[in-house]
Amino acid sequence: MTYVSAGREYTRDSRYLTTRITADGRDGYPVEPGRYRLVVSRACPWASRAVIVRRLLGLEKALPMAIAGPTHDERSWTFDLDPGGRDPVLGIERLRDAYLARDPGYDRGITVPAVVDVPTGAVVTNDVSRITLDMSLEWSAHWRDGAPLLYPPALRQEIDAVNDMVYRDVNNGVYRAGFAGSQEKYAEAYQRLFARLDLLSERLERSRYLVGDTLTEADVRLFTTLVRFDAVYHGHFKCNRRKLSETPVLWAYARDLFQTPGFGDTVDFDHIKRHYYVVHTDINPTGIVPLGPDLSGWLAPHGREELGGRPFGDGTPPGPPPPGEEVPAGHAP
Amino acid sequence: MTYVSAGREYTRDSRYLTTRITADGRDGYPVEPGRYRLVVSRACPWASRAVIVRRLLGLEKALPMAIAGPTHDERSWTFDLDPGGRDPVLGIERLRDAYLARDPGYDRGITVPAVVDVPTGAVVTNDVSRITLDMSLEWSAHWRDGAPLLYPPALRQEIDAVNDMVYRDVNNGVYRAGFAGSQEKYAEAYQRLFARLDLLSERLERSRYLVGDTLTEADVRLFTTLVRFDAVYHGHFKCNRRKLSETPVLWAYARDLFQTPGFGDTVDFDHIKRHYYVVHTDINPTGIVPLGPDLSGWLAPHGREELGGRPFGDGTPPGPPPPGEEVPAGHAP
Repeated sequence: MTYVSAGREYTRDSRYLTTRITADGRDGYPVEPGRYRLVVSRACPWASRAVIVRRLLGLEKALPMAIAGPTHDERSWTFDLDPGGRDPVLGIERLRDAYLARDPGYDRGITVPAVVDVPTGAVVTNDVSRITLDMSLEWSAHWRDGAPLLYPPALRQEIDAVNDMVYRDVNNGVYRAGFAGSQEKYAEAYQRLFARLDLLSERLERSRYLVGDTLTEADVRLFTTLVRFDAVYHGHFKCNRRKLSETPVLWAYARDLFQTPGFGDTVDFDHIKRHYYVVHTDINPTGIVPLGPDLSGWLAPHGREELGGRPFGDGTPPGPPPPGEEVPAGHAP
Repeated sequence: MTYVSAGREYTRDSRYLTTRITADGRDGYPVEPGRYRLVVSRACPWASRAVIVRRLLGLEKALPMAIAGPTHDERSWTFDLDPGGRDPVLGIERLRDAYLARDPGYDRGITVPAVVDVPTGAVVTNDVSRITLDMSLEWSAHWRDGAPLLYPPALRQEIDAVNDMVYRDVNNGVYRAGFAGSQEKYAEAYQRLFARLDLLSERLERSRYLVGDTLTEADVRLFTTLVRFDAVYHGHFKCNRRKLSETPVLWAYARDLFQTPGFGDTVDFDHIKRHYYVVHTDINPTGIVPLGPDLSGWLAPHGREELGGRPFGDGTPPGPPPPGEEVPAGHAP
């Protein structure tokens, strides 16, 4: 598949379906337990945000999840992990069909996360930033007991500001490096990425979390890029000034999150590596998937408790993932 | 250029021109100062062995050197760094011409190192293992004062044994991983590489050098792969269980050698990175050259003096590289 345009900067297609699922149903889609299906891939950092927030808030029952396979062709994500290659609820083989159910002329990205309306089989929204914020803002009636406030009113402005710079330089920055069509565009993305990681390291040196003293949406969004850093971005996307594991503050921060219930228990390194190395044939034509890196370090003590902080604020950690949603043994450290 | 054959193992073409330059001239090519020209690329690990041994033994005047540019097309190495794009002594633009002067029907690899007979303009030998050994065995009349014994008679058997396993699993092992035509062949090369590096780490934990207590040919051969490890083999060849800089004993060993006169002062990281990432279009089609890794660690203290050892035995370190042979500022840490 083609992601690199010779001589050009990589530009993400961010023309999303922006319909919202809200408590008051003002877009025609009210919050309703069991009505929607969250389609994700564990490979994808954008979808993984939604997987983590759903776990932290305990929305597993209210918003069931479909997990697409890690690799795909130009027709995008498929349900090849499911028996018969079909999602058992939506009854489709390809996520594309749910986009076409929404709009037969749909010609934009077939992306995850996507929230599908089960009765009609049509995608309601794939607006990645909105999906997780709306889990915090609109789905609160269905949270588990002890769910944390990931987007508390007093901190929203600061969270939004952090999210903006993390998106530009880090979340999307690694793609701008990896899919750059020229040496110059690559270099620009690389410099911005590492300059931002340096600033984030400084910020996190004395502060356990990015905003306030509890986990927020901002930590979720930085985590999904950091957890992929050494496994795919360092080599495959040439983000190789140094590994995350050679960046002491960020590495301890990322391990702290990884070891927090709701984060690491959603991460499938097998899916992550196979997706990037198999699907991006224009930067890895052989399709060979590296055996490294050694992942055992993710479980090493991080020492960040000393910085204080209250991970879940007045809430509590989530329990283990529900049956059927565990990451397979061998796909994790 | 094509290095990977789908589904197949990478097999190095080792059908070399094996004519020897000897003190007694029995193959028709006697050792004679100024008669031959050693053609190298600083990018190439095989050629770099010869560059280092020549420096350690002080053969710079007796065996002048031509440095090819780091990148090339399917017609192989060129003298594009020289004024007018021609080697000033041989008068040719491409090393290929010297191979054709030896044999107009030559159809094997146009490789460096190559030793060219200046009067005829023809390659005498490109037999990489033999070239450095013969600098030790046949050129001793022209060594500098204080030249070390890199292939001392009492240790030859052990050096040969170490060289054999280092060649198979490490020097050539990284290529077998990087140019593997299947996941299975890649995995086999990767496992052998890291198993061997583990054994070498154990061996070097209490011993400053590989064989005996002084620098030998064995250290030169392991060094030329280690010095390229994080810059190219880790990412480009997917040898990514961990970086050299995350492998404490080997990393200290490699730094010790790097900081020894005759080793690090021959290393051009710019040439190394540009060669691998630009020439191997079948595994890096964009031709983009990574900006990383941060190289500053190469100059950090290594602490290996504590293990004892006498780097140059009864000899002395070489002086600085002669004028015209310095690695350009900015191409080194």
